[in-house]
Amino acid sequence: MTALLLIILGGLCAVAYGIVTINDVMKRDAGTQRMQEIAAAIAEGAQAYLKRQYATIGLVGIVLFAALAFFLGIKVAVGFLIGAVLSGAAGFIGMNVSVRANVRTAQAASTSLGGGLEVAFKSGAVTGMLVAGLALLGVAFYYLYLTRGAGLAPASREVIDALVALGFGASLISIFARLGGGIFTKGADVGGDLVGKVEAGIPEDDPRNPATIADNVGDNVGDCAGMAADLFETYAVTVVATMVLAAIFFGGQVDVAGRNVLEAMMIYPLAIGSSCILTSIAGTYAVRLGANQSIMGALYKGLITAGVLSIVAIAAVNFALFGGLSTSFTTSTGVSFTSGGLLGCAVIGLVITALIVVITEFYTGTNFRPVKSIADASVTGHGTNVIQGLAVSLESTALPALVIVGGIISTHALAGLFGIAIAVTAMLALAGFIVALDAFGPVTDNAGGIAEMAGLPSEVRRSTDALDAVGNTTKAVTKGYAIGSAGLGALVLFAAYTSDLDYFIANASDTQYRFFKGVTVDFSLSNPYVVVGLLLGGLIPFLFAGMAMTAVGRAAGAVVEEVRRQFREKPGIMAGTDRPDYGRAVDMLTRAAIREMIVPSLLPVLMPIVLFFAIQLVAGKSQAFATVGASLLGVILTGLYVAISMTSGGGAWDNAKKYIEDGHHGGKGSDAHKAAVTGDTVGDPYKDTAGPAVNPAIKITNIIALLLLAILAHA
Amino acid sequence: MTALLLIILGGLCAVAYGIVTINDVMKRDAGTQRMQEIAAAIAEGAQAYLKRQYATIGLVGIVLFAALAFFLGIKVAVGFLIGAVLSGAAGFIGMNVSVRANVRTAQAASTSLGGGLEVAFKSGAVTGMLVAGLALLGVAFYYLYLTRGAGLAPASREVIDALVALGFGASLISIFARLGGGIFTKGADVGGDLVGKVEAGIPEDDPRNPATIADNVGDNVGDCAGMAADLFETYAVTVVATMVLAAIFFGGQVDVAGRNVLEAMMIYPLAIGSSCILTSIAGTYAVRLGANQSIMGALYKGLITAGVLSIVAIAAVNFALFGGLSTSFTTSTGVSFTSGGLLGCAVIGLVITALIVVITEFYTGTNFRPVKSIADASVTGHGTNVIQGLAVSLESTALPALVIVGGIISTHALAGLFGIAIAVTAMLALAGFIVALDAFGPVTDNAGGIAEMAGLPSEVRRSTDALDAVGNTTKAVTKGYAIGSAGLGALVLFAAYTSDLDYFIANASDTQYRFFKGVTVDFSLSNPYVVVGLLLGGLIPFLFAGMAMTAVGRAAGAVVEEVRRQFREKPGIMAGTDRPDYGRAVDMLTRAAIREMIVPSLLPVLMPIVLFFAIQLVAGKSQAFATVGASLLGVILTGLYVAISMTSGGGAWDNAKKYIEDGHHGGKGSDAHKAAVTGDTVGDPYKDTAGPAVNPAIKITNIIALLLLAILAHA
Repeated sequence: MTALLLIILGGLCAVAYGIVTINDVMKRDAGTQRMQEIAAAIAEGAQAYLKRQYATIGLVGIVLFAALAFFLGIKVAVGFLIGAVLSGAAGFIGMNVSVRANVRTAQAASTSLGGGLEVAFKSGAVTGMLVAGLALLGVAFYYLYLTRGAGLAPASREVIDALVALGFGASLISIFARLGGGIFTKGADVGGDLVGKVEAGIPEDDPRNPATIADNVGDNVGDCAGMAADLFETYAVTVVATMVLAAIFFGGQVDVAGRNVLEAMMIYPLAIGSSCILTSIAGTYAVRLGANQSIMGALYKGLITAGVLSIVAIAAVNFALFGGLSTSFTTSTGVSFTSGGLLGCAVIGLVITALIVVITEFYTGTNFRPVKSIADASVTGHGTNVIQGLAVSLESTALPALVIVGGIISTHALAGLFGIAIAVTAMLALAGFIVALDAFGPVTDNAGGIAEMAGLPSEVRRSTDALDAVGNTTKAVTKGYAIGSAGLGALVLFAAYTSDLDYFIANASDTQYRFFKGVTVDFSLSNPYVVVGLLLGGLIPFLFAGMAMTAVGRAAGAVVEEVRRQFREKPGIMAGTDRPDYGRAVDMLTRAAIREMIVPSLLPVLMPIVLFFAIQLVAGKSQAFATVGASLLGVILTGLYVAISMTSGGGAWDNAKKYIEDGHHGGKGSDAHKAAVTGDTVGDPYKDTAGPAVNPAIKITNIIALLLLAILAHA
Repeated sequence: MTALLLIILGGLCAVAYGIVTINDVMKRDAGTQRMQEIAAAIAEGAQAYLKRQYATIGLVGIVLFAALAFFLGIKVAVGFLIGAVLSGAAGFIGMNVSVRANVRTAQAASTSLGGGLEVAFKSGAVTGMLVAGLALLGVAFYYLYLTRGAGLAPASREVIDALVALGFGASLISIFARLGGGIFTKGADVGGDLVGKVEAGIPEDDPRNPATIADNVGDNVGDCAGMAADLFETYAVTVVATMVLAAIFFGGQVDVAGRNVLEAMMIYPLAIGSSCILTSIAGTYAVRLGANQSIMGALYKGLITAGVLSIVAIAAVNFALFGGLSTSFTTSTGVSFTSGGLLGCAVIGLVITALIVVITEFYTGTNFRPVKSIADASVTGHGTNVIQGLAVSLESTALPALVIVGGIISTHALAGLFGIAIAVTAMLALAGFIVALDAFGPVTDNAGGIAEMAGLPSEVRRSTDALDAVGNTTKAVTKGYAIGSAGLGALVLFAAYTSDLDYFIANASDTQYRFFKGVTVDFSLSNPYVVVGLLLGGLIPFLFAGMAMTAVGRAAGAVVEEVRRQFREKPGIMAGTDRPDYGRAVDMLTRAAIREMIVPSLLPVLMPIVLFFAIQLVAGKSQAFATVGASLLGVILTGLYVAISMTSGGGAWDNAKKYIEDGHHGGKGSDAHKAAVTGDTVGDPYKDTAGPAVNPAIKITNIIALLLLAILAHA
């Protein structure tokens, strides 16, 4: 109980940090009248979009809430509601800070690079801490209520189902927000560039372009709110899955030599999360521009601080919960390990995070071979730029995959499946800091736009551009990190599925879990249905990504039409005598994005359900369970590679363009630059729509499969 | 024995068809002096390339021959040699016909479209029949020698190992030829276009471009010889794997009610192959341009003829070998099915082939939504063209995957794993016809180039362009077909691996198979090493494709340098007063392609070996076997999607360009056309280098794993 309260205190610290930092950011100078006007237009558009998005998700959510309440009871439905509402809240608040910080960053950057970095990073840190804090608080509070308030046994089905439903709520918001936001932001970006840069020949962020506000709105609803929902979900699902695994592995161990092992194991992931919120906050204070003016260097200082402190903090948690590092445990499946082994797994999780950051920086940073090779290939034209970009995107999957494999092997050797789960938990525990790294990207992107539109001196734009280039890398980092943790977490989620299934089968009788009577599931690769599951699961990321790319193309086409119409009907816009109707473009994109997000989002949601009943029809229940289980691994297997290649490749394309704009290969306006703009355009939906949306698609498939088991168990 | 001789007779029919048709093609009018000069230059370049390629592969081959002879005995090494030599021969002869048919096609097309189609298709049919015929003869003769000449038992390890080694020989040629040829052809194509069309502003195939002969050479060494080696390998490996499975499943059944079930089952795949060579030949005579001048329609007539006759022929085989359709069998693993069930599986294999043809035509044909959507997206620029092309490429994986899954489920229901193997065999049995469809593509492509260079009237070019557009679709068809069969065949190869493993483990003692003593392999998805294997196997296609794309980029860059040098040193070239040195470009590309093919080719070859020993070191033999086994499925799982998306996407890009050139969206020279040229350039290495080379990469991984088992068994 004391431990749980301390954990909740850690979560509250994140919220407190958020409030203090919001106040700090809001006190900064918001710049000129013109700058504030622009920022207000962006804020208005972003809020309008989010409202409509949440209203649409709300409709789906109400149906699902009712369905969950009907099939699995009110506690489960409430869990779903908590996950959804908190995820939405994290995104909404983060975005609201972001749309206020952008103009202040532009203003601060007019004084110094360090000033701009500070404001942008702080506003990102608010989103980061809220993501981690609210996710932790949601799970911890609901667990506290279920086990203490409602008096349920920690390892009971009701607690497990309710926690899984909480993850489902977060997943649902996440997939819609990632995809809808991604379609909005890249529809605006691609469409605006096409009609502005290419057709009208005006620079990016030119106030004469009617799509320019929409572009800036997109940064906030996609890269900020969408990303926040994604990481909230990743965090919540990981913690929940680890708790479920703890419940399964230590279910009977409420008193082992006077120690409540079950309780300790179930709150261990929460404790790791809570303690790492504190170290993440400490890390944010270490982000400071050094004498060398290296922005990435400043961010690394923070990351290293947070990482090193986290090792100490998790060790302390081990002492507090397990009484030291040599205490040994044995799971119900017979795997033995020590508290120190678990600490080792957590450290491996942190090391994986660090490696993914370094690898992503290598593939997307302007100082390294991959980005330079794309820039070089731009000299010979659009085609070779895209070829080299695709080559880099495909290649960039190798090192992260090896790191993940190394993580699986080493943590499994230390503490079996539970060790893997703890490693992922430790990875995600730093989410507060990692999201901070990411969320500063859209703020600086916006700041650059505002500087351009408000006609600030070009030095300001140079500062914001430098911040933005690093933002491209850090945005890729977060995506690699999220998908990497999903790769490692796949085993955990799959284990949760198989363990649940085993439980229902073992306890099936005429009075309970009747559906599972006589079911025997063969998960061996020799079972053709396992291969069928792997193949069909593996298809999802490809099909889903293809649909997302098409959606962006369509949304961008709609923007082009709208902007052309405005130019045609108001000839004064190009002359600067008439103001474009920014709101119409935002409104049109909002409708397009919401419309386009529905079908692709439902694909991973419905896949496990349709697959189950289709195979049940053809080959019976047992094979249906095997197929669905295998499909979960299939999704992660191709999803990992599709997502990493898209997010790294997209980041590399973007920064190859920036590298040329920095004066290489003829700089801005050269043929190489034109080719690089093409690559950047291609990379846009790759890195900001399709790629990142694959991550929640993977998770939601897994969660749906777990809920399907629960529903079948109640049937 | 009679049956085997009849089978060999079928194979000889293919060779006879080849000889007759070569004579027929050679008798055609070879056109003007200028046309013959150009054709001679292409032929010379192609031969020079193939010689150097085979010399390089020969070096690797000698080492492997010696290694196989040392580890597994001379019979196994000879099997390897047969596979390699016949595969090389099929490609070499096919290419030699192709470089003679191109000029005759150009000449025939100057009379009529139908005439051009006839010559081009016939020359393609030579390659097709040689691929199927030589592969069949190689396997059948060696099997005859081993079981009759050397007197080995059909299901003995020596026979199995020797046949697998034959597949390995074919695979080795295939991966090098596909990749080397692919790098050559696309390096020339992309590089030539960049420096010709973009920099010098001269049209494609302009004789002033020093890379133009190299481009035409590439069609022959990549799309003809490389493709032939690939399909030879697919055919040989499939037949061998099915025979291996027959040996395992029916090993003890040399006398069941007076019938030698083992022998019948082992030669059944050979009999299917032999009978379908006859139906394929019949099909080629049905290819005839109708009144509607639909080229695709003419090809469909042939395909439908071949397909329908094949059903009859395979039914006849069933009667001859099994005495009817109701004879029932039971495998050593306890699966029962009838002869009619096997016929059903074969029919399903043919249906899958037909469906893949139709689906590929939908995704790559100029009459359907996907290609039109790319053409539409070209209007708004390079970026949107590429985005839409990528969207189509990702989406195009869905239907083939569903077809393959349907095939797995239905054939498995009919006759278990052996049913799946028979379905793949039946698919591949039509290889003679399908390769004919493909190999006519490079001939028409060359014919167009010759027409352009020799200054033939523009109607000729129009006819060859129409043939070429269909060629883009049929080339995509073959690739989809090859990779689709690999998807279905993955289970067969994996089954061969697990069955071999089971055999060695069951028979391990101190005197034989000592390495396998005490090994227990867990192929369940719950085993983390299975997930590790799936992940690492899944990485191969991504990394391999990325390396292939980079290689093409580098080779194209080298071409650009060379052409620029020639333009600089001989200013008379552009004025038409000086002749470019075509040979230098060919020579330079030859060296570049050979150099670039080595490292990526070794990746799938070494992966299973390195993986085995690395995991053995970390986690012991048992987990090493599990990891390698899982990696085989991992390779196929991502490989299937990567390859289909690349080959379909690339075909769609190419035809979107052709669609615009046909006068849509402003036609040639419009901005939309420029964007479509970019898409085509990107699609080039996608569809002709990286995508198709994934197929042999998958197969070679599987074959290496089987050989690794054999070597460990001998250790």
